[in-house]
Amino acid sequence: MFKSLAELRAACAELPSGDAASAAAVARREGQLTKPPRSLGRLEQLVEWLARWQRRNPPRLSQVDILVFAGNHGVTARGVSAYPAEVTTQMVANFAAGGAAINQLARNAGASLRVIPLALDQPTADFTVAPAMSEAEFLTAVTTGYDAVSPAADLVCLGEMGIGNTTAAAALVAALFAGGGGARWAGRGTGVDEAGLARKRAAIDAALDRHAGILADPLSAAAAVGGRELAAILGATLAARRQNIPVVLDGFVSTAAAAPLKKLRLDGLDHAMAGHVSAEAGHRTLLGELGLTPLLDLDMRLGEASGAALAVLLLRAALACHTGMATFAEAGVSDKA
Amino acid sequence: MFKSLAELRAACAELPSGDAASAAAVARREGQLTKPPRSLGRLEQLVEWLARWQRRNPPRLSQVDILVFAGNHGVTARGVSAYPAEVTTQMVANFAAGGAAINQLARNAGASLRVIPLALDQPTADFTVAPAMSEAEFLTAVTTGYDAVSPAADLVCLGEMGIGNTTAAAALVAALFAGGGGARWAGRGTGVDEAGLARKRAAIDAALDRHAGILADPLSAAAAVGGRELAAILGATLAARRQNIPVVLDGFVSTAAAAPLKKLRLDGLDHAMAGHVSAEAGHRTLLGELGLTPLLDLDMRLGEASGAALAVLLLRAALACHTGMATFAEAGVSDKA
Repeated sequence: MFKSLAELRAACAELPSGDAASAAAVARREGQLTKPPRSLGRLEQLVEWLARWQRRNPPRLSQVDILVFAGNHGVTARGVSAYPAEVTTQMVANFAAGGAAINQLARNAGASLRVIPLALDQPTADFTVAPAMSEAEFLTAVTTGYDAVSPAADLVCLGEMGIGNTTAAAALVAALFAGGGGARWAGRGTGVDEAGLARKRAAIDAALDRHAGILADPLSAAAAVGGRELAAILGATLAARRQNIPVVLDGFVSTAAAAPLKKLRLDGLDHAMAGHVSAEAGHRTLLGELGLTPLLDLDMRLGEASGAALAVLLLRAALACHTGMATFAEAGVSDKA
Repeated sequence: MFKSLAELRAACAELPSGDAASAAAVARREGQLTKPPRSLGRLEQLVEWLARWQRRNPPRLSQVDILVFAGNHGVTARGVSAYPAEVTTQMVANFAAGGAAINQLARNAGASLRVIPLALDQPTADFTVAPAMSEAEFLTAVTTGYDAVSPAADLVCLGEMGIGNTTAAAALVAALFAGGGGARWAGRGTGVDEAGLARKRAAIDAALDRHAGILADPLSAAAAVGGRELAAILGATLAARRQNIPVVLDGFVSTAAAAPLKKLRLDGLDHAMAGHVSAEAGHRTLLGELGLTPLLDLDMRLGEASGAALAVLLLRAALACHTGMATFAEAGVSDKA
């Protein structure tokens, strides 16, 4: 349990680096496999990345865990979403019953799925008028996320559900990457109309004004204008790094949630990849700010770790090639003219 | 067996259309599933496309067949490839032994793999000086591809192997989409160096000059400057359409091979999708000419249907969501505010 922002900040500063030797061993083998050099493109880089952050050669994907955190948001009172706040709880029930997209996508990817609701009956405060969370509430949510990561996982996918949370995510990245405000970062979320989008922009700008004094600190910003499920994703991303587990981020909200780690340390998200770029307006911009190149671009905007779960399919394919292919020598194929 | 170009041309002109009713039924159900409308983006369109061209609601992916056609090319005498021509036969042996990338990717995708070598001991003629194939040779290759498509398949992925075949593919699309020549269409293939690339461009331009009189006809062009594996892919693409089987094309060579169908009929490739856009220089340009939007963009340039096999993973994921998700009514989730 993180007991203070200072303690959490210290944990964010003590991060293991990747293992260059494992990554180099993967690259060496890739060069010997029966294909023109680098002709599997991004797939080869994925295996190197897995090896680097698992600190293991070859890497493995025996246990892939999908964690979906759910939270409720006081800012929904500002009319920022196309859906009523009770949908968060309804969708958590739908996850439990197996009826949501991520249930199908997790099974399809051979991944376990765990949905973790965070005090759904206690929405965060409307951050246009007060901090979304107290320091204690924020640290509790971060710790919940931190503790949700199993040390046995080979890969963790992080997703979310929470009516109103694209507003929180946009406010958070507007705080972290100053200069654009609501106009730069607000998108349509689940499908808000033009008037709702205007209210969303206004709510973000009001939050930036209201909390201006403390937004320079990434963790304070995450507490003031974020959300519980975002805080949990931050905690899970941190836990994964400290346990040598690579992370697949999902869409705009997941990426925004993890972004404070990059602001605290330039290499803070090097163990994380962007499973996809979503159709939510700010996601591509945010990935650019973070230097992340998304694996997929399928015009999705669902959240729930749905894009991350699809990325798992490509990671498995990449690893299957790496471990299963014959070398030029084994296959008796001429290596160049 | 196609006995003449005229007979083949007639077959290319008699194509079934897609089934709008099945596609509409899929779209209707997608709108009822527990997610914001269209939030699964491209995944939803994929299921609609499967339903339209399988003429079936819901569509299915019980039998996915990957067909890899292999051929040899006389134009390799012009020094257009980084690898010697014997690698084609060596790689076919590697496919048989299970050591190639596509072996791993097919298994990973739950697809069957069939590799079909086409007269590897009889390379096509060097098309800078003579037609690559006689009409009879071309029709034999087209027929081989046509007959390789099983009527039981729910989806067919088409790939190729053939040292020198990016030169043939580039010459073919340079003939089909006049005005660019070798400079527009030649890429590095398996990794040819600068001098080899110059020879490749020159070979393409020489072929365009040599066969100028007959290149206006897409099928004659495919015989004069194509290759046996390209002709087989053309035949397989045609067979799939006539048997209501959607097709996933792979990279530059596969797409070029199928392109004559689009030149013969504006909707000739509507049952085909681009599994990915490869790193081979001309592929993105070619997809643009054909109006195809690739599903993946992973900087791959291997061929072997490798990109198409990855696309199967996303098709399966899309179908799993479509068939497995609960509707708003079933789940008791509020549909909009």
